[in-house]
Amino acid sequence: TTHYSFKLPTYCISVLAKGTGWVRSVRAQKANLFLHVNDGSSLLSLQVVASSELNDPLLTFGSAVEVTGTLRKSPHQNQPVELEAQQIHVVGECNPVDFPFKIKERHGLEYIRQFPHLRCRTNAFSSLLRIRSEAATAVHSYFKENGFVQIHTPVITSNDCEGAGELFQVEPSGPQNEEEENFFSVPAFLTVSGQLHLEVMSGAFSRVYTFGPTFRAENSQSRRHLAEFYMVEAEVSFTQSLEDLTKVMEDMFRSATEHVLAHCAEDVDLFHKHVTPGHRVSPEGRLFNLAIDILNRSSEKFAFPTDWGCDLQTEHEKYLVKHCGNIPVFVTDYPYDLKPFYARDNQDHPEHTAAAVDLLVPGVGELCGGSLREERLDLLRARLEEAGLEDTYSWYLDLRRFGSVPHGGFGLGFERYLQCILGVDNIKDVIPFPRFSHSCLL
Amino acid sequence: TTHYSFKLPTYCISVLAKGTGWVRSVRAQKANLFLHVNDGSSLLSLQVVASSELNDPLLTFGSAVEVTGTLRKSPHQNQPVELEAQQIHVVGECNPVDFPFKIKERHGLEYIRQFPHLRCRTNAFSSLLRIRSEAATAVHSYFKENGFVQIHTPVITSNDCEGAGELFQVEPSGPQNEEEENFFSVPAFLTVSGQLHLEVMSGAFSRVYTFGPTFRAENSQSRRHLAEFYMVEAEVSFTQSLEDLTKVMEDMFRSATEHVLAHCAEDVDLFHKHVTPGHRVSPEGRLFNLAIDILNRSSEKFAFPTDWGCDLQTEHEKYLVKHCGNIPVFVTDYPYDLKPFYARDNQDHPEHTAAAVDLLVPGVGELCGGSLREERLDLLRARLEEAGLEDTYSWYLDLRRFGSVPHGGFGLGFERYLQCILGVDNIKDVIPFPRFSHSCLL
Repeated sequence: TTHYSFKLPTYCISVLAKGTGWVRSVRAQKANLFLHVNDGSSLLSLQVVASSELNDPLLTFGSAVEVTGTLRKSPHQNQPVELEAQQIHVVGECNPVDFPFKIKERHGLEYIRQFPHLRCRTNAFSSLLRIRSEAATAVHSYFKENGFVQIHTPVITSNDCEGAGELFQVEPSGPQNEEEENFFSVPAFLTVSGQLHLEVMSGAFSRVYTFGPTFRAENSQSRRHLAEFYMVEAEVSFTQSLEDLTKVMEDMFRSATEHVLAHCAEDVDLFHKHVTPGHRVSPEGRLFNLAIDILNRSSEKFAFPTDWGCDLQTEHEKYLVKHCGNIPVFVTDYPYDLKPFYARDNQDHPEHTAAAVDLLVPGVGELCGGSLREERLDLLRARLEEAGLEDTYSWYLDLRRFGSVPHGGFGLGFERYLQCILGVDNIKDVIPFPRFSHSCLL
Repeated sequence: TTHYSFKLPTYCISVLAKGTGWVRSVRAQKANLFLHVNDGSSLLSLQVVASSELNDPLLTFGSAVEVTGTLRKSPHQNQPVELEAQQIHVVGECNPVDFPFKIKERHGLEYIRQFPHLRCRTNAFSSLLRIRSEAATAVHSYFKENGFVQIHTPVITSNDCEGAGELFQVEPSGPQNEEEENFFSVPAFLTVSGQLHLEVMSGAFSRVYTFGPTFRAENSQSRRHLAEFYMVEAEVSFTQSLEDLTKVMEDMFRSATEHVLAHCAEDVDLFHKHVTPGHRVSPEGRLFNLAIDILNRSSEKFAFPTDWGCDLQTEHEKYLVKHCGNIPVFVTDYPYDLKPFYARDNQDHPEHTAAAVDLLVPGVGELCGGSLREERLDLLRARLEEAGLEDTYSWYLDLRRFGSVPHGGFGLGFERYLQCILGVDNIKDVIPFPRFSHSCLL
């Protein structure tokens, strides 16, 4: 079987070829039969032209075919080639009554979400998956080109760092004996972040990143949360300024978006034209730094307080993004007490802030969160002692005992990034198999 | 802070520069001080030359420094440039008494494994991590260049397909109420393979792959097994021959190995010269197909039987690899009853085989396992009915009901691949944070 490729040069006039794929449309005229056959390599389908004698009741929307014939330059402007069929073989039937997607109907994202094993066969979701694949490639390329070493941080961890009870715990399945000890001898959890493991690597590499699944046992079915989602996380050593971090975030955002727009133009167009009409994305958005008191200077009524020391809520994030002209916005230097133990103390009394930064984007809110990390052994130890965590994190203190360096990093929610560039409202529509409370299909 | 890059052109004679990194060696002469400073970007260190007045007792092995000075062409052949220091700042001390790694000592992999948070600071393990990162890049590049769409198959799944009790189960941590229902409403497990989820995608894309963590709750501390390990898995649609699959396996193996040898020459050399002396790898190994009766024709005494219908054991795999001249070897067409329900029936009575293939490699044994998948609805349904699994896999049967295509795929153990090319005996030494029974450090 030769795999048919759409990358064939458009000047080729006539070659023997085999076209394989799934039927997207069937049009029978008196003398001729026209099929559109899609092989998943792009949104574009191959036009197949055949004598109407080759028509077959099994040639239905969704059926799989192998077409043998002559590939020739197409007389139509919107396709480089078409396949003149000598033979059409239906290798997999598709009963149009039972198949949940119907020819020429535009099914909404919510409808197709009911069929997790079939939704990739729609134009919208196959476009999404190609975009997601290219975006992942773009993320890896950005880091590679900028000297970052990729680290596979573990999924299973004995850290329960960010704690707060939203962890999944892991044990072998089957009946557990009450007295039996844990499989790993200690309680083990699914990771909520690869940051601490990346920081291990920040003691030997100047630039590291990880890109993989992370987990929260949040009892939520909201449009914004998943139990399993992908994070891009990076750590940069020998840096003492948040600007070094915001530069990496901004560059990665721009470079990934340019890559996606360049490599998936038709797929992105499908979204911006039909799925989320009116949505636009530009990698050229300017980024602003600003302080929380913009909120206090505003005349907007907020449900949550905006006093110094209160955390930003989604409504505040949305206001800030809007206030700055609906472009990505950085918020820096958060109240020290709101941030985890590893955030670097700015020692700027009386405000007392930590060197932390969030990137807020239109439609989504928080896309990235990061900080400089406390690299000073005495300050870090004092904070861990205060929290009674000195023993738990003695290994983390070791990183500051031996060759400690000023460093910082951030995490980006990959699904939120896809929502941001495509304008997709529900996070469940940008991941192949969404997991959330009460739902783990397949 | 300017990040010092080793990619500076060698013709540059003298530029002001800042060198940051960790001290690998200190040599004080009467007039001059020589340091080797490594920033993790390569095995090579930057030579720093300073007046001995800049010597400092804090300049110890493992300490972190920022050096400001003039970068100039080095008079020595084995380094392009050196840094003539005007200033040396120790940003992170490293007490040589407490630090577990000692200057000029070659610590074994087993010794450094005791320090999961520090072992990346040794030459051997930082080389390993760079090689692992490049190998991951190579895997993604291979698939990208060959038209595969990357799919993020889920970690949490309600499939317990390959069953057999070696699954990890997932629930929110904290006290569980006996009557409480599962977080996902159904029992949920950590994935043992992304294959079935990739097969979903094989109904819309001609070529897909996934590369991520997979899990086995195996009670083993052997050199060959981990509870969390990485798999590369691929599915190819519209294929009816195992040769299409073995070609992908062979091409990927060759392409990844060529990439690693080209991009990590010094790191691989370190392993082949010092860590696993005598080991060699060539991406040019020829691949053979062969049948099991080679075992029966041999005069070797095996502990396990080699009768038709018995599964291959590690001793058999090792014999086959050796018999073929210590090169990668394909074994095809296994007894039907030994293979899972999805393997394609060859219908070749009386032997009755399934179209399955394993790739065996020197030193490691099984590196890849794959098969054509049963795409024929009636045969698949009959086998699932026989096993009482028709309801559980009704979604999987749907894939054959609607536009089914002949397809097949395989999985490659990424750690085993690294063991194979580097000659590393223990799988715990080729992954950043190994997880196995009774051990989940950090």
